[in-house]
Amino acid sequence: MFERVAVFGVGLIGGSFALALDRINGARRIVGVGRNSPSSRANLERALQLGVIDEIARDEEEALRGTDLVMLAAPVQQTEALLAAIQPHLTLHAIVTDAGSTKQNVVEAAQRALGGKFPQFVPGHPIAGKENSGVEAAEATLYDGKRCILTPLSDTAGHAFERVRDMWTACGAVVSSMDPAQHDRVFASVSHLPHLLAFALVAAIAREDDAAVKFAHAGGGFRDFTRIAASSPEMWRDICLANKPALLRELTAFEQEVALLRRLINDGDADAVQREFARAREIRGALRF
Amino acid sequence: MFERVAVFGVGLIGGSFALALDRINGARRIVGVGRNSPSSRANLERALQLGVIDEIARDEEEALRGTDLVMLAAPVQQTEALLAAIQPHLTLHAIVTDAGSTKQNVVEAAQRALGGKFPQFVPGHPIAGKENSGVEAAEATLYDGKRCILTPLSDTAGHAFERVRDMWTACGAVVSSMDPAQHDRVFASVSHLPHLLAFALVAAIAREDDAAVKFAHAGGGFRDFTRIAASSPEMWRDICLANKPALLRELTAFEQEVALLRRLINDGDADAVQREFARAREIRGALRF
Repeated sequence: MFERVAVFGVGLIGGSFALALDRINGARRIVGVGRNSPSSRANLERALQLGVIDEIARDEEEALRGTDLVMLAAPVQQTEALLAAIQPHLTLHAIVTDAGSTKQNVVEAAQRALGGKFPQFVPGHPIAGKENSGVEAAEATLYDGKRCILTPLSDTAGHAFERVRDMWTACGAVVSSMDPAQHDRVFASVSHLPHLLAFALVAAIAREDDAAVKFAHAGGGFRDFTRIAASSPEMWRDICLANKPALLRELTAFEQEVALLRRLINDGDADAVQREFARAREIRGALRF
Repeated sequence: MFERVAVFGVGLIGGSFALALDRINGARRIVGVGRNSPSSRANLERALQLGVIDEIARDEEEALRGTDLVMLAAPVQQTEALLAAIQPHLTLHAIVTDAGSTKQNVVEAAQRALGGKFPQFVPGHPIAGKENSGVEAAEATLYDGKRCILTPLSDTAGHAFERVRDMWTACGAVVSSMDPAQHDRVFASVSHLPHLLAFALVAAIAREDDAAVKFAHAGGGFRDFTRIAASSPEMWRDICLANKPALLRELTAFEQEVALLRRLINDGDADAVQREFARAREIRGALRF
């Protein structure tokens, strides 16, 4: 059990983490920290009202006082600034972890911002999300049965890694480890690119003259395909920018496949179109979630 | 009520239609017709066992004997050959309709194949589907509350249109009318293109060296985005080829949006990326299904 846990960013991810930790009696006290903006303050007040956190910290110094676990659940572009603000107040026995959807840039940011305290940082990525954001959408069961990837480096402290791993396991997640670069390639492919494409499809149709009649006739296929286009624009902007190299490589591979399909359809090559679709169907049909 | 209804293609769509019609006592007898292949014959036997149809017709002549409604629910590329085979046996009071996902090519096929009997044809498109195909997946409730688009022409017989419209309404569908060309633009945009893109994403990842680890880490976003990639390859091949001009136009618009997002991400233009995502989110979030 942790004595005092500071959650930076008490939205869907951070709020659900706080609720999950509370459910397993994993923390004696949970403090929430946000940005110095009216909307962020209102969100923290709501988190307090909902019982997601026990108190609100005004700044990093107050947040870190007596804290033995820091969870960063703010948009990933803020990681370096947050870690730099935390660093002076980070005691030796405190552990820092994060829930960012990209890992290579987070690791590099942590190396720069934490310096000699970098071994206390355990980079993590719980694979859970919904299209709704904000603390109102938080759920204690969000991580039940979901994967959580940790991407420790050779200089990550073993005991810090183990405590974070055991905590996520106790919260219901299925924990595994991966190299940060491999993590970023994997999620560029199966998460970041689909989000980009879903946003792009809705934005493209919206530009057309007959957008209204088109959207009015969208059915279940469109609903599910574009569900993730209702995700947080700020969060996904940050992820796309943070994971730019891997994302654009995956996008290129996708565009090559689309160009192939366009050519086959244009040529009326029914057999080849069916072969491509059948290959995709066989693979997709075999996936279990 | 119809005396005798012949369903050509007793799969998910045709089978669900038969079950829905039976539920409302809309037909005294329902006969199923398939292709002359072992798998098609086995499917019809299964449909008979399941009570989806009352009998199996060996050919068009037998299928049309005493029949006052013909439903074409076979893959859309077969429409012209089917209508040509039906035409000689079509009595004056019989109505023909279809459930094809594209309408302009179906209307043109019907004009060629039916000639002077074209007014008896009511082109239709019930907007319902699942990723599962075949008669085993058929459900009497598939069309409940779903849209059904009819695309009659000026020479479509008014009484035929009304009977088909009233029948779909009684089966639980919400019926509306549209011009065939507009229909094809609308569904290229919100149905055919998403299917193409979902097939393409799965096929693109499958080509990569680390495909296995990527698919192993796919989460809920990927699951929903690619759900339609488990749809029937034959059916979607036919739809993509049948609606080629509209589909490729929509694909071009989509590719332009993707190219814009690629440039903005490559330039690190955070504000512009967020603006595009936020626009898509606002529209997607407001859609009701």
